[in-house]
Amino acid sequence: MLKLNVISIDLITNFQMAVLNEQDAKDLGILPNDRIKLSNGTDELILIVDITKKLVKKGTIGLNSDCFLSKIKENDAVRIEPIERPLSVEYIKKKLSGKELSKDECRQIIRDINDNRLSSIEMGAYVAAVYTHDFNMKELFAIVDEMVNTGRVFKWDSEFVVDKHSIGGVPGNRITPIIVSIVSAAGLIIPKTSSRAITSPAGTADTMEVWCDVNFSIDQIMEIVKKTGSCFVWGGAVDMAPTDDKIIKAEYPLSLDPEGQLIASVMAKKIAMGAKYLVIDIPFGPQTKVDTLYDAEALAIKFKKVAQKFNIKCECTLTRGDQPIGLGMGPTPEAIDILNVLNGNGPDDLREKSLDLAGILLKLTKKGNRDTAQEILDSGQALKKFKEIVIAQNGNPNKDLQKMLGKHKAEFKAKTNGHITEIRNKELTQISRLAGAPNDIGSGIILKKKLNNLVKKGDTLFEIYAHQEFKLKNALKLSQKYEPIKIEQKEKILVKEV
Amino acid sequence: MLKLNVISIDLITNFQMAVLNEQDAKDLGILPNDRIKLSNGTDELILIVDITKKLVKKGTIGLNSDCFLSKIKENDAVRIEPIERPLSVEYIKKKLSGKELSKDECRQIIRDINDNRLSSIEMGAYVAAVYTHDFNMKELFAIVDEMVNTGRVFKWDSEFVVDKHSIGGVPGNRITPIIVSIVSAAGLIIPKTSSRAITSPAGTADTMEVWCDVNFSIDQIMEIVKKTGSCFVWGGAVDMAPTDDKIIKAEYPLSLDPEGQLIASVMAKKIAMGAKYLVIDIPFGPQTKVDTLYDAEALAIKFKKVAQKFNIKCECTLTRGDQPIGLGMGPTPEAIDILNVLNGNGPDDLREKSLDLAGILLKLTKKGNRDTAQEILDSGQALKKFKEIVIAQNGNPNKDLQKMLGKHKAEFKAKTNGHITEIRNKELTQISRLAGAPNDIGSGIILKKKLNNLVKKGDTLFEIYAHQEFKLKNALKLSQKYEPIKIEQKEKILVKEV
Repeated sequence: MLKLNVISIDLITNFQMAVLNEQDAKDLGILPNDRIKLSNGTDELILIVDITKKLVKKGTIGLNSDCFLSKIKENDAVRIEPIERPLSVEYIKKKLSGKELSKDECRQIIRDINDNRLSSIEMGAYVAAVYTHDFNMKELFAIVDEMVNTGRVFKWDSEFVVDKHSIGGVPGNRITPIIVSIVSAAGLIIPKTSSRAITSPAGTADTMEVWCDVNFSIDQIMEIVKKTGSCFVWGGAVDMAPTDDKIIKAEYPLSLDPEGQLIASVMAKKIAMGAKYLVIDIPFGPQTKVDTLYDAEALAIKFKKVAQKFNIKCECTLTRGDQPIGLGMGPTPEAIDILNVLNGNGPDDLREKSLDLAGILLKLTKKGNRDTAQEILDSGQALKKFKEIVIAQNGNPNKDLQKMLGKHKAEFKAKTNGHITEIRNKELTQISRLAGAPNDIGSGIILKKKLNNLVKKGDTLFEIYAHQEFKLKNALKLSQKYEPIKIEQKEKILVKEV
Repeated sequence: MLKLNVISIDLITNFQMAVLNEQDAKDLGILPNDRIKLSNGTDELILIVDITKKLVKKGTIGLNSDCFLSKIKENDAVRIEPIERPLSVEYIKKKLSGKELSKDECRQIIRDINDNRLSSIEMGAYVAAVYTHDFNMKELFAIVDEMVNTGRVFKWDSEFVVDKHSIGGVPGNRITPIIVSIVSAAGLIIPKTSSRAITSPAGTADTMEVWCDVNFSIDQIMEIVKKTGSCFVWGGAVDMAPTDDKIIKAEYPLSLDPEGQLIASVMAKKIAMGAKYLVIDIPFGPQTKVDTLYDAEALAIKFKKVAQKFNIKCECTLTRGDQPIGLGMGPTPEAIDILNVLNGNGPDDLREKSLDLAGILLKLTKKGNRDTAQEILDSGQALKKFKEIVIAQNGNPNKDLQKMLGKHKAEFKAKTNGHITEIRNKELTQISRLAGAPNDIGSGIILKKKLNNLVKKGDTLFEIYAHQEFKLKNALKLSQKYEPIKIEQKEKILVKEV
């Protein structure tokens, strides 16, 4: 055991990080990537260690900002001791061998992830293990339960706490703010937390930021929900199922999203949020995360089994994911779509999908059905509720969104007459991101045509908006390379000849 | 693309590492753990990026010392561009799904590992993938071939280049210097590279350092081998099968050692070293890496298949691993054993095992047999050759090893009369390491009793040596906790009652 003084080290790695002087490391008998326990008497951290000759002096330990989310602070005197390889490394190996894990082994893995006992190499092996031998239902229940236990659990006075989730993979698709506004206007409680974009042109949190703040503490969120019955906030500052974020950080570089882990992550957050009724949207198709209707149905059944185990009434919608939902991609373009629908207009697909899901929540809670949802939307009650929430989140619901679009604009035009037979989601996403989305709030794409539309040569297929000229140029260049919207002489009916 | 100036950043992480200022990272559109290509016109590196606000200023990029093994140097102006997720991440996913990889996919994985294109999370997934769905022979041939291709390959004038490998797992077991001395004295060429201890009390390189230098450049190694026909050097500075080191760094925290990868790593180094004859020692038993004789035999057959494919004549020895070989554990204690055997004495097990393996190499090359090996040892020719090599490696073969043992000594005594029925390798290893092995060269354990020996209460079972008193105390405390040598009234014959 050693006593060291904490200094701050300015490195953003996505992980908590400790840097030790090589002399201290030698005295502790530890090598790079070994684990230590660090304690200041009131709080403790488990950290993976890097070693330095000069960056950190003997007698001190460097911690990066992620560490200071704990009660360990700069200049603290801390005790350091090396700790063993955690138990769960053995359980990950067991899972890799294809054996079923006991409940306790599942729980231990989640606890070790939560305590940062696993290095990034071990996290990679964990994600790989779940990908290669997915959780069975028994394991899944234990994983979900422990993911809930290791974080904050919300309690509400109302019985009618509802939630909505989309497993994602379809650009645009900004149905959440519309659904929240409708069901909240109908009297349901929907404390909605959303994510920011990782690889998409915008997440719901990025889009809502066009109008208002989304970054609130737990107490502030409780206050907003108390006032309006709902919220649209960023989930990152809320300590629900915190292991999920850590697992996602390991999944992202591998673009592995094992089904069992996906289900566990979604359901743990919904349980922690206190939802009693839930609708889950599962877009399917070759461009999404779920290839076929058959796969989507299998996934839906698993979601419903976990929901039932934890006393949540849950319905899943299996929806087409063969093109973006709505016209906009990027924060402001998507915000424009939302406001149009709340004002009783299109885009039709965004309107219809939002009504479908809102209707299911009203039906589950016996507060109405799809028709009720449509009345609430068309009567302006949803818009009114939307504005109320935006104001409660320190925002301005009356912004001129057109003026917020990036100043640099390009139009991508049809090179021939015909029908639109294919719209490539992933390519449009890449183009939007090159244009600056989601960081540049007014950047992205506005589609002018969708699947099966007739076009003439020279018609605009989509517009690109950017805040900086070089980003527009790069986005346009990629559009020309990809031609992400395909035009053919006839509607494409025959898919494959065998 | 950005132009930045290289600065040095003092972080030992086991991996090449780049640190970018957050402004530059934003301009490049990259997130922590994304990949960049860095080039100074003559050399290029692929690096995984961490991000900082202050540690590295805008306009500069921080690289750690591992990066400077390339032709990129401090103060170089370098061009930086973000690069895509490498192809091999898809192949790792394919392997995780249980599908066979094509030759090209195997080769691409090895090339990407070699170029540092895989992050530690991805390396964890790779090791996990090979563990869960081990390579078949076709994949293994491609992996081995590419591991050889990505590094240095040695050429020798002689046809009689031999090598020896132990897959490890048994403490002590310092047969290598003895075998090298015998077969070299018999006229074979044996350019032996060895590892340092990672988790054991000493590696062959650590033990040889008791007498001489082990850290030589490739040219220096060629020189030593030219002079003496052999060497005992550390393999770390030799650029053979360099991907192996990178894979081992990912295996170590997981203590996963997938069989296919093990075979590939061993064989790639032997092929790169130019060996034409090879003996591989496979200790088996519950305390080693290979549980049963059956498993050891299966492993041996795979080694032999790969050897045959690459035109190497190979024999494997399946040996008992139920106790340390020799009496010493730790650099100097093991050196004492080696010198005793070279002087024609015991420990018997170390002597017999060394003669067995040396005999096999002599037989494979048609230069003799086990009797020849014994003659060379007992006539003092092996000792003479050993001294010759030590001198060629700038050493002194006449050191007083007893004086080099740690000054602080403890004796661990028998608490009862009886037979020794069990010696726990892993516990003795931990005790040796707490005493300071392998860093403190005179630290470790000297066994006074071995399996089946009769002991009386109060007899010394083993001695512990340390350079520092607190290390001796810690090692003794752990000895008392573990009692790593078990004594029972009768010899233990019945193993399990079913």
